Amino acid sequence: MTEPGSGPPLRHVLAADQFTPELIAELFGSARAMDSRLGGPALSRLHGRLMATLFYEPSTRTRLSFEAAMLRLGGQVVSTENARDFSSAIKGETLEDTVRIVGGYADCIVLRHSEEGAARRAAAVSPVPVVNAGDGRGEHPTQALLDLYTISSELGRLDGIRLVMVGDLANGRTVHSLAQLMASYRGVEMTMVAPDPLRMGADLVASLRRRGVVVREADSLMDAVGEADVVYQTRIQTERLLEPLSQDEGERDRYRVTPQTMARLPQGSILMHPLPRVGEIDPAVDADPRAAYFRQARNGVPVRMALLAAVLSA
Amino acid sequence: MTEPGSGPPLRHVLAADQFTPELIAELFGSARAMDSRLGGPALSRLHGRLMATLFYEPSTRTRLSFEAAMLRLGGQVVSTENARDFSSAIKGETLEDTVRIVGGYADCIVLRHSEEGAARRAAAVSPVPVVNAGDGRGEHPTQALLDLYTISSELGRLDGIRLVMVGDLANGRTVHSLAQLMASYRGVEMTMVAPDPLRMGADLVASLRRRGVVVREADSLMDAVGEADVVYQTRIQTERLLEPLSQDEGERDRYRVTPQTMARLPQGSILMHPLPRVGEIDPAVDADPRAAYFRQARNGVPVRMALLAAVLSA
Amino acid sequence: MTEPGSGPPLRHVLAADQFTPELIAELFGSARAMDSRLGGPALSRLHGRLMATLFYEPSTRTRLSFEAAMLRLGGQVVSTENARDFSSAIKGETLEDTVRIVGGYADCIVLRHSEEGAARRAAAVSPVPVVNAGDGRGEHPTQALLDLYTISSELGRLDGIRLVMVGDLANGRTVHSLAQLMASYRGVEMTMVAPDPLRMGADLVASLRRRGVVVREADSLMDAVGEADVVYQTRIQTERLLEPLSQDEGERDRYRVTPQTMARLPQGSILMHPLPRVGEIDPAVDADPRAAYFRQARNGVPVRMALLAAVLSA
Repeated sequence: MTEPGSGPPLRHVLAADQFTPELIAELFGSARAMDSRLGGPALSRLHGRLMATLFYEPSTRTRLSFEAAMLRLGGQVVSTENARDFSSAIKGETLEDTVRIVGGYADCIVLRHSEEGAARRAAAVSPVPVVNAGDGRGEHPTQALLDLYTISSELGRLDGIRLVMVGDLANGRTVHSLAQLMASYRGVEMTMVAPDPLRMGADLVASLRRRGVVVREADSLMDAVGEADVVYQTRIQTERLLEPLSQDEGERDRYRVTPQTMARLPQGSILMHPLPRVGEIDPAVDADPRAAYFRQARNGVPVRMALLAAVLSA
Repeated sequence: MTEPGSGPPLRHVLAADQFTPELIAELFGSARAMDSRLGGPALSRLHGRLMATLFYEPSTRTRLSFEAAMLRLGGQVVSTENARDFSSAIKGETLEDTVRIVGGYADCIVLRHSEEGAARRAAAVSPVPVVNAGDGRGEHPTQALLDLYTISSELGRLDGIRLVMVGDLANGRTVHSLAQLMASYRGVEMTMVAPDPLRMGADLVASLRRRGVVVREADSLMDAVGEADVVYQTRIQTERLLEPLSQDEGERDRYRVTPQTMARLPQGSILMHPLPRVGEIDPAVDADPRAAYFRQARNGVPVRMALLAAVLSA
Repeated sequence: MTEPGSGPPLRHVLAADQFTPELIAELFGSARAMDSRLGGPALSRLHGRLMATLFYEPSTRTRLSFEAAMLRLGGQVVSTENARDFSSAIKGETLEDTVRIVGGYADCIVLRHSEEGAARRAAAVSPVPVVNAGDGRGEHPTQALLDLYTISSELGRLDGIRLVMVGDLANGRTVHSLAQLMASYRGVEMTMVAPDPLRMGADLVASLRRRGVVVREADSLMDAVGEADVVYQTRIQTERLLEPLSQDEGERDRYRVTPQTMARLPQGSILMHPLPRVGEIDPAVDADPRAAYFRQARNGVPVRMALLAAVLSA
């Protein structure tokens, strides 16, 4: 069976800044080829290869997406969501020991952990490639890649994008990684819409500007949406944003997407959200063809297929 | 490789009343063909297809049965028993959002949920077929089908069956679905044996009678068993039945199956139970060849194979 | 595709004493053939066969190792870590009923249970082979086999081994099973190093001596290590050993492995540990090529592959 292009070889996948525009172009070519084959005859590119998911905290969405990617390439999966309770005899084996053992069973490890830096610690001792599926406030590079792939697929380009980012821009690793990846492309403009305590950090904004991004701020989403190619709505964590704002419905509505927001969004533009959402987007918006967030979630599969193919063909 | 017959196309599998005698005959033909092939060369009918099990409450038996069916057809599975905790970041994503996302990863979704109507809500938004694996007090159509398949396999017919139903006939969705499916066949007689507070609802009895079923009631299993082709013993939920009756051993024994009960059961007849059991059947009965409940459980695999083949070849 | 040798047929795998030196030699030949094929073209020896893991207590390491073994042979897996909560409707179905049901779905059952004797109870009713993956204070035969396989692989022989066993020799089923298996070989010498309350039972020592093993005791690991071919360090359960000894660092150090211990260990010798460890081995020792414990863990895969191939080709 002819297999789609494999993309470039990779070993550990730890951070978004590993991905240059050249590497991204190759990976996305591979992802598109795989995407077009889904639903056709089964792929067998990773037949005989075994992936372990080692999750120290639940993230069913991310785990299922990685597992679907591996299985759709003809590979197999062993899985645990309870990596913290790795044994009945002892709680608290070190991450390093667990990774060395699981690396003896499988050909790669997909790691989810609550501590920043856990993926690098794992990669330092692992006999097989480690793919970071989120390590606390650290990185979640495959989420950043699927976000970028979505923009590329939906708009047909990554240069000259006008990106409006809304919500909690202080804490979201998703939006930080996406902003940094986007900064590698030409003619990018970003408009930030966030309540004062949740504005994007000055260091990151300065770094984006040094790299040539035009960065603006806006008071409300309504003010910014008319000029957007992409509105990226981030998860608003209840404890950080909604509670202090809940007394003031008007304040809260400055960051929500409603049919009225969509009425101002240009025709060829899209609305993205990393999901899950909890009230930031009115469900009435779902039927709008510009609401791209479920397509964005689905894109996790071909992007992770391309990554796993690259990692396991190294 | 030649594959067994596929059965008719289906999309969502939500309720027992979707299944006409014609559809059932086709499905059971397909199930029998698959059953006869188990243990032989591996089937590859669903090679390259991916099923997601999305369980909001544990039901290991049902989950393993569906997964075994999919894998025995050459397909693959991604699985979660903790669908309620779908993400570490947020509890309480809507069922609809989760189904739309998982429907982007897999080719069908097997859903277990605690709320009646959940399967219909899922089907309304899912991009892929939804198979109801039990939604609270609602439906559990694949259990009803495997019950019917068991009667058909064991007795060689579905017409003219004398069915004795024992236990909690008020609350069990299993017995309700089975009674409704059986009512489509000719010459069916049903005898109900239940303590007064757990008798089958008058509406359902009236509906069965309208459809031509002869319905009787009996005071104790011993009175009814001599004329039975099938004794269907339902799970007696401790909090509903055993507790109030536990003071009165004689009362309780009117609904239990013991070797004495089996002595009165005709030779070609069978004893069924949806399992798990908790004291309703004396383990001394297990060795009797008419004790069909473990064969009944096993029948879940070929019946679900036939269903998945029909759903995924649509 | 040519498959590696299959090993002898087996049915249930319940206890280490099922394994004679002849059977072990055949299994290890099969394991070595499979080991050498890992990383090459996928094996398909168990294509179309289905294994169920039925774990009543978590042991992610053991579960993943069995699952990796089955998948690397081309088989498939259904899995539960919550066998105790087998159903949402009822807690406390008997082990026997659960095994009969799961044995109707799968071609073999890998059982982990907290109660001694559970594997034998399961085998008595199971329609398919049962493999004991640890039953409480009872047996864990596949751990004993992988330990023996490690000695055989690392040293090239099983006769004439000088084995030093350190730690909790009173309670560890691992060390008991290994000692009994080793006693079948010629010229074996064992030196026991344990604090007084955790010395190996007199019955077992007497049995080893009757079978021709030279058994000695030593006060500290340092006294014994110079004459060892294999140092087998057992898990020191905190509540049993470390707590009473923690006041006395010197006492505790008599049972720990440090770079100083390794300096006395002969060149061709090895250090083993069943893992997880919790302070019994200084991590500075990990880089020593004689530290065999991660290779030992990895050996679980080819040994279990050989066992599953033997069990499922019967």
